Amino acid sequence: MAIHNFYAGPSIIDASILETASNAIRSREDLLSVIEISHRSVRFGEIMEEARSLVRELAQLDDDFEVLFLQGGGRQQFFQVPFNLLNFNQVAYYINTGSWAKQAMHEASFFGKAEAIASSESTNFNFIPKSAPVPENAAYLHITTNNTIYGTQFHDIPSVDAPLVADMSSDIFCRPLDYNRFGLVYAATQKNAGTAGATIVMVRKSILKKAPGSIPTMVDYQTHIKKQSLYNTPPTFAVYMSLLTLRWLKASGGLSHFVQHNEAKSNAIYAEIDRNSMFVGHALKEDRSIMNAVFTFTPEVNQVRENDFVAFCEARNIIGLKGHSSVGGFRASMYNALPLESVNALVDTMQDFEKQFG
Amino acid sequence: MAIHNFYAGPSIIDASILETASNAIRSREDLLSVIEISHRSVRFGEIMEEARSLVRELAQLDDDFEVLFLQGGGRQQFFQVPFNLLNFNQVAYYINTGSWAKQAMHEASFFGKAEAIASSESTNFNFIPKSAPVPENAAYLHITTNNTIYGTQFHDIPSVDAPLVADMSSDIFCRPLDYNRFGLVYAATQKNAGTAGATIVMVRKSILKKAPGSIPTMVDYQTHIKKQSLYNTPPTFAVYMSLLTLRWLKASGGLSHFVQHNEAKSNAIYAEIDRNSMFVGHALKEDRSIMNAVFTFTPEVNQVRENDFVAFCEARNIIGLKGHSSVGGFRASMYNALPLESVNALVDTMQDFEKQFG
Repeated sequence: MAIHNFYAGPSIIDASILETASNAIRSREDLLSVIEISHRSVRFGEIMEEARSLVRELAQLDDDFEVLFLQGGGRQQFFQVPFNLLNFNQVAYYINTGSWAKQAMHEASFFGKAEAIASSESTNFNFIPKSAPVPENAAYLHITTNNTIYGTQFHDIPSVDAPLVADMSSDIFCRPLDYNRFGLVYAATQKNAGTAGATIVMVRKSILKKAPGSIPTMVDYQTHIKKQSLYNTPPTFAVYMSLLTLRWLKASGGLSHFVQHNEAKSNAIYAEIDRNSMFVGHALKEDRSIMNAVFTFTPEVNQVRENDFVAFCEARNIIGLKGHSSVGGFRASMYNALPLESVNALVDTMQDFEKQFG
Repeated sequence: MAIHNFYAGPSIIDASILETASNAIRSREDLLSVIEISHRSVRFGEIMEEARSLVRELAQLDDDFEVLFLQGGGRQQFFQVPFNLLNFNQVAYYINTGSWAKQAMHEASFFGKAEAIASSESTNFNFIPKSAPVPENAAYLHITTNNTIYGTQFHDIPSVDAPLVADMSSDIFCRPLDYNRFGLVYAATQKNAGTAGATIVMVRKSILKKAPGSIPTMVDYQTHIKKQSLYNTPPTFAVYMSLLTLRWLKASGGLSHFVQHNEAKSNAIYAEIDRNSMFVGHALKEDRSIMNAVFTFTPEVNQVRENDFVAFCEARNIIGLKGHSSVGGFRASMYNALPLESVNALVDTMQDFEKQFG
């Protein structure tokens, strides 16, 4: 029986990638398992270089960009970004689209001034606010392109003169995008780009103005640029998993394929949310995410509880649907690796649930 | 033909662990592969808890300690330690036993004053200096218990009133030790405690004096203590690999078994280094490491080059012997997972090399 994995992350991985990874651990190809090899070996150097080069190719980055594989996920970037880009006499601006954006903004306050230039907090972050003009002397403008908790996503990337910094942890490589409009993009890899344990950073070298050696070596992007992501021991297996995922993204047709795939899935689930008398979407339609559909019961539903629907789904191997506590209800995460069949199975189940309890 | 893996790290992993990890990735036990499960799932919660609890048990930690699984390896700890423990009006003391200790000390200088209280630099770090008395107001004393590059190891742990901080990245769990004498111990997991991508931290809560919220959230040990290492998405597979390794350490007989195993290996290699007319050890005998034997050709050897010996070994599947550029020559890393047979194979090869070229 098929498993339909709607978890928000760590999340579904294509079966072909699991198979390749499993074999690479077991078989001591070239004498060693992939998790035994030195990060200074030729074999790992090739893994790192191919992974960095595939990120560059998929994002179609210009020459001012460097691609890094770091550790610590989005939370490490929350403070690493301002450590590198913000001075105490400057202001960094954030568009406050929810919990992740707020937490990122809080960390900037250790290094300078951090201000929300726009926010959707008053309506529990159910839309993407349009950015007010960003002052000329801004250190940067930070956005969270996709908001897993609320199911919102930037469909129009703001135009600003200041460096634009984006947390793309939950929607990297879900669609073609002009990555060259950004100053810095970061993404934990456990949703669309591998497994937990690595962080992809794409950084425009020209925005790095602090003198080399003026901040701790490990958090200085210039350290990792100079050493091509081999300054310290990288999370070798997590980078290998990203390589397998990036190869699979490319071989499957690249970002133009995945945006079609992801829109087919999100169109199907949103059509059912809008049709079904028991459910209502959280986000405004124009800002709905193609990665995470967040929905609740309508106020009229009172004969069943949220856990009943979760259990109804789990009985059909449809898992990971429980919503985040900030919104309640349900969340269907539909990252690149989720097949359309899983969304169809969920839609069928929502219809059956309505027939039985609606 | 057996493979003899003497790499300094990432390094050899027991074949039984590779097999278990490979199966856990491939088989969707409980519906999901171990690399697909949410860090908020019961299954991962159990992995994290068992791993933390095994660290506590193997180290026999008292109740004031917390065990954390973090990311970023030793380099992240180089700045995270002073960020948490050092104020600008204080001095942190370091025993300078080589490259790693020096780099750790450099990062402390971003947060306060950092001073070497003892050093073996003038003789290329071939011994462990005895610590001078540490001033009463010291923020902490930092030591690197094992020095991979030079093949030295602390066999006597200094007694100090200040919190004792230790980088044990290359010798954690190689021997029984009174871990309760430390204030903080950190170790990247890719040598003796798993694979690359996780960092074990054992921290005594009573040494954390900075107010909660006074430093960036992700680098504050108190954050991770409060959230029991689930503040952010942990490197789930790397933690799982540590769990498998810690289980294997315990099942194999614990630290008292491994110190015997490691001394049997290091006694064999050092006996051959001392006997063989072509080789000489780098470290003073009393400070020799049981993890990394570092040796060079004697000055009399001139008919062969270092690469000739490396190639002679590689022809017998003895790999990873090339020494670090700071010392040259050869380094045999003999972490817990290396069998005695591999050292015996190396000893035989050194003897054959001497017969042919000595």
